[in-house]
Amino acid sequence: MTAVNHKIVLAQLPRGDKLAPHHFVAAQSAIASPGDGEVLLRALYISLDAANRAWMQGATYRTALNAGDVMAGGALAEVVESRADGLAPGDLVFADTGWQEFAVLPARRLAKLTRVEPLSHLLSVYGVAGLTAYFGLLECGRPKAGETVVVSAAAGSVGLFVGQIAKLKGCRTIAIAGGAAKCALLTSELGFDAAVDYKAGDTRRALRAACPDGINVYFDNVGGEVLEACLFNMALNGRIACCGAVSQYDGAAPTGGPRGVPGLIVTKRLNLRGFVVMDFDDRRDAALADLTTWVKSGQIVVREDIIEGLANLPTALIGLLAGENIGKRMVKVV
Amino acid sequence: MTAVNHKIVLAQLPRGDKLAPHHFVAAQSAIASPGDGEVLLRALYISLDAANRAWMQGATYRTALNAGDVMAGGALAEVVESRADGLAPGDLVFADTGWQEFAVLPARRLAKLTRVEPLSHLLSVYGVAGLTAYFGLLECGRPKAGETVVVSAAAGSVGLFVGQIAKLKGCRTIAIAGGAAKCALLTSELGFDAAVDYKAGDTRRALRAACPDGINVYFDNVGGEVLEACLFNMALNGRIACCGAVSQYDGAAPTGGPRGVPGLIVTKRLNLRGFVVMDFDDRRDAALADLTTWVKSGQIVVREDIIEGLANLPTALIGLLAGENIGKRMVKVV
Repeated sequence: MTAVNHKIVLAQLPRGDKLAPHHFVAAQSAIASPGDGEVLLRALYISLDAANRAWMQGATYRTALNAGDVMAGGALAEVVESRADGLAPGDLVFADTGWQEFAVLPARRLAKLTRVEPLSHLLSVYGVAGLTAYFGLLECGRPKAGETVVVSAAAGSVGLFVGQIAKLKGCRTIAIAGGAAKCALLTSELGFDAAVDYKAGDTRRALRAACPDGINVYFDNVGGEVLEACLFNMALNGRIACCGAVSQYDGAAPTGGPRGVPGLIVTKRLNLRGFVVMDFDDRRDAALADLTTWVKSGQIVVREDIIEGLANLPTALIGLLAGENIGKRMVKVV
Repeated sequence: MTAVNHKIVLAQLPRGDKLAPHHFVAAQSAIASPGDGEVLLRALYISLDAANRAWMQGATYRTALNAGDVMAGGALAEVVESRADGLAPGDLVFADTGWQEFAVLPARRLAKLTRVEPLSHLLSVYGVAGLTAYFGLLECGRPKAGETVVVSAAAGSVGLFVGQIAKLKGCRTIAIAGGAAKCALLTSELGFDAAVDYKAGDTRRALRAACPDGINVYFDNVGGEVLEACLFNMALNGRIACCGAVSQYDGAAPTGGPRGVPGLIVTKRLNLRGFVVMDFDDRRDAALADLTTWVKSGQIVVREDIIEGLANLPTALIGLLAGENIGKRMVKVV
């Protein structure tokens, strides 16, 4: 074990501006020792998520981040030293280690993960991304075979799984993504029936062409203008799974919400439901069993975007917010 | 029977301006005769609803209104002449007669109503208003005893019933209404636990004071800024029954929706559901049985605002949109 813990600290909070490298600073400290009931963890893969940026804007489903904090983030981590029952050196856990090599955490919040090959799948299809797609689509979206399912940020970690799960449930799947190249990839290699490039202008009209019978289920990762364009194209009794609002995270606070709220919700009898993956913790095992079956049968293809080196975390997050990645982005620490 | 049918015609559609008397014109015609399968109806009480104004803005859950049309509106009507099985002179029905004394309609769309005393209750508590409150609150809002229920346009035809039904289900009930006098009446005579005057400014702060544990169920009749204020005060897992958007009907098309959509929907795990009363037609009888029980036991007090004379329909609607009425407003035709 090295004696030094390398970490990335939030040097200052972005205040209405886009996230940039100068908001972060590298730091180091001694490796802490676990107290009673605690474990010392080594981060193997640190997850990058649009939500990381939302945490800088104030309290969400977790407390807000402040300047001087080790940047928060979830990681696949290995137990190095344990002073808690139920966890031993070599065990794998998913933990909010933050952006650092080593972290000491209370063991009671941690659940031991079953080792799979490759390990990175524990952060993608068997992690928050896969479970978010699974529960958001199936519980909030409730798609029926033959229905039209639209997902935004479709090439992202969650979106790719939403599309594939909807497809195997017999739905017609429409991707919304940024750029012609990404859209082409989504239909040619990643199983979507059609793709709409929101950067090409008039998303509302493009969606109308792609969904002539309206949208039955919209899985919303982005909010803003894309949500508005979908609202105007929803079919009667449509469902919207509200998962995130990445279009709103990296900049000033939004000045208004989408038009059509609540008018279109009433006239089209829409159901909008917000969720966070941990709301479904009690059904995690059943979901993982389904996802495992689908991965093994080839019905779900897993795409990952793995960057090496702790020092690359800031640019990896900035790039994720700009839509660089196809599939789950993570940083391999060691 | 008079030989002349007096009616009110939509002279011109308001185009981004407030509804005014010059948008209407009185007219008359001969009374039509029913054809095969049709009935001739005489309107007794014509219902005034905020939705009347929404129909002038384009297609909603019904086709849009156009200049030259008899103004649309539902009425409690009596069969005068029948050429259809199942309906006989003297029978009562609720029908979209429009703003006129006599109308010929196909009988197949009409259901015979059981006569009650006073007859006007068939347009209020046993009509669209009562049923909208019942289904919107209980099906979309799903309140549990001890929860906090907020309703906007609380002194209106629907709002008054929402408050009283929520109260008898064991909830704490908060009214949102315009003006101190109306708010005082709502708490002193109409059973609300507290009232917030949205015209007094900072509705968001006033709601926070009135609902220190957050809003569990919000019954939204108004949309706009009041919906936004409620979104910021919703409790975790709160439900919003989206019934209407009266704040948006009487003027130019809204330029934006409420802030917090979809961010607050996600972080608070909210569920917004739009509905129209006819969605629940298959359970109408059970609802009417409940409402009858509650009226007879005195758990629901019925307030009505009855104006006499067909010629007063335009000003009655304009006044309703300005929030003049307490309880269900209707015009007694004869």
